[in-house]
Amino acid sequence: MTNSEIIYGKNPVEALVDMNRRRINKIFIAKGIKYDEKIKKILKRAREYKVNIQEVPREKLDSLTKGVHQGIAASVSPVEFMDFKDLLKSLEHKTNSLLIILDKVEDPHNFGSIIRSCAAAGVDGIIIAKRGSSPVTSTVEKASSGTTEFVPITQVSNLASAINKLKEHNFWIIGAESKQKKYYFEQDYDMNCAIVMGGESQGVSVLAQKKCDILVSIPMENKINSLNVANAASILLYEIVRQRILKKK
Amino acid sequence: MTNSEIIYGKNPVEALVDMNRRRINKIFIAKGIKYDEKIKKILKRAREYKVNIQEVPREKLDSLTKGVHQGIAASVSPVEFMDFKDLLKSLEHKTNSLLIILDKVEDPHNFGSIIRSCAAAGVDGIIIAKRGSSPVTSTVEKASSGTTEFVPITQVSNLASAINKLKEHNFWIIGAESKQKKYYFEQDYDMNCAIVMGGESQGVSVLAQKKCDILVSIPMENKINSLNVANAASILLYEIVRQRILKKK
Repeated sequence: MTNSEIIYGKNPVEALVDMNRRRINKIFIAKGIKYDEKIKKILKRAREYKVNIQEVPREKLDSLTKGVHQGIAASVSPVEFMDFKDLLKSLEHKTNSLLIILDKVEDPHNFGSIIRSCAAAGVDGIIIAKRGSSPVTSTVEKASSGTTEFVPITQVSNLASAINKLKEHNFWIIGAESKQKKYYFEQDYDMNCAIVMGGESQGVSVLAQKKCDILVSIPMENKINSLNVANAASILLYEIVRQRILKKK
Repeated sequence: MTNSEIIYGKNPVEALVDMNRRRINKIFIAKGIKYDEKIKKILKRAREYKVNIQEVPREKLDSLTKGVHQGIAASVSPVEFMDFKDLLKSLEHKTNSLLIILDKVEDPHNFGSIIRSCAAAGVDGIIIAKRGSSPVTSTVEKASSGTTEFVPITQVSNLASAINKLKEHNFWIIGAESKQKKYYFEQDYDMNCAIVMGGESQGVSVLAQKKCDILVSIPMENKINSLNVANAASILLYEIVRQRILKKK
């Protein structure tokens, strides 16, 4: 990972300014761009928070970004990973903690939108393997819609031993696997949960499956045997959210 | 839409051969490629179904496709839209029909993965507006993982009048909108449902919202006010699947 990254587009930069401004080094705005309501709002907030704003030629933005920048971009410090031990420590006195383990999710759009769903669902942490996972690139951040600040992300070199550690800390390890008879909504999630989601190409690895305490499936029609991993993760996480909100009522 | 499209990559071509082979005109395989298990399986099936297979130089595949083709691609006829009237007619004698209306979903990855979730959830049809929606491109098809055959897709020129027609046909129109007090899981979906999902940039349009019989929200923490549209759609659809499976038991 480099020392700074570029986030671009109105919505992602707005989300940064609103929710993640500590990470912004500078905002770049294209010379001669029409200031619409959104751009005005972003610049107003940025000025309030004393964020450095620099006008640059549109060509500079073209070269900094890889996609449609809409005339605005921000240079930000990279997302910092939380140490796995620190994550476990932060949850020691919490009940019903919720973690997600991504077993080789490679697509940055999927990874980003999973982060966004995790942030919205109040997930306590995302655990990814150092090898075979998408790094937190600017594409991931764009897809996360600026929500990386809300969920600690932890990189571990060995998923299997991380799972063992989670078990020692009273986590139940729950894997999503299409061939299971138990549907995900037939499980009670009133406990510390770590949900294991497999990557796009092979699903949850056999090794990780063996480590799971509980395996559940998502019912599917039309002989379809898998969903997009971000959609599947969102469905599982929100079943847990649903159950927990209803229990509180 | 052109008269033929290119689907590429091992998984998408495998899905085509398994589930959608009527649409395949020809399979292209790169000369000199190593035949792994997956490629062997695809070619075996393709031969069984008498699909035309052509060996081509790798450069030809590079020029036909826009991404990582893994040495295999297929030329297919485009997805055919179903007429809106035919869709309504096909559901006349069905109870608890389930439709999804996409109000300007622009991102082809999102559109594709929504199709995949719809196919898995047993959705009866997807309604999109002619203007402002992503067309069913090869990117959409790749993201749908070859599932377009399982869900009729209907294009309408006017969403508002399509919604009126649905109401005449005893559909309840349900919109997802972040500011609603009623959570999506507090609604009983034991009826004909048409779920309205808004696009990436503006959510459900005000016009469509006014037409909704019921508005529901997805609870979110961390002051996050929206999810990725494909994740949100999957969460809503699977709540309906969950309720209906549990009712049958």
